[in-house]
Amino acid sequence: MRFLAEIDIMPHKELLDPQGKTVALNLKNIDVHDVKDVRIGKHIEMTLDAADANEAESKVDLACKKLLSNVIMETYSFTIKSI
Amino acid sequence: MRFLAEIDIMPHKELLDPQGKTVALNLKNIDVHDVKDVRIGKHIEMTLDAADANEAESKVDLACKKLLSNVIMETYSFTIKSI
Repeated sequence: MRFLAEIDIMPHKELLDPQGKTVALNLKNIDVHDVKDVRIGKHIEMTLDAADANEAESKVDLACKKLLSNVIMETYSFTIKSI
Repeated sequence: MRFLAEIDIMPHKELLDPQGKTVALNLKNIDVHDVKDVRIGKHIEMTLDAADANEAESKVDLACKKLLSNVIMETYSFTIKSI
């Protein structure tokens, strides 16, 4: 079966996100006001084959832990759907 | 009212995503097999104040068009919820 995993990798809430802060500060220059916070991370779409949803989930989890995210500085979350 | 916008910005489907291709090729080195495609974009969480959901939506849309995404090479989508 083929699955599509949608993965979000974000900087830990406790950590400063300088890229997000810069964007938040500059949004008023394009007339977007009242923005309180911006945090910028990665969105990854992975298409993969697996026997079932459980196997797909453990593959994506392994990929997140060992390659896609830096678990010291980032958190990850994902959803999987069959396609 | 305060809103949280979750924005995904992805490279256009027609465009090569070299970062994603590299990740897809290297996943087998950490024993994650049968990955067919990986595409990498940005995930942005924006907290903002607005009078109502419609105003929040138009603010986020403007921010995406004029600052957050490059509409020539990227597509964006977002969801908004009241917090």
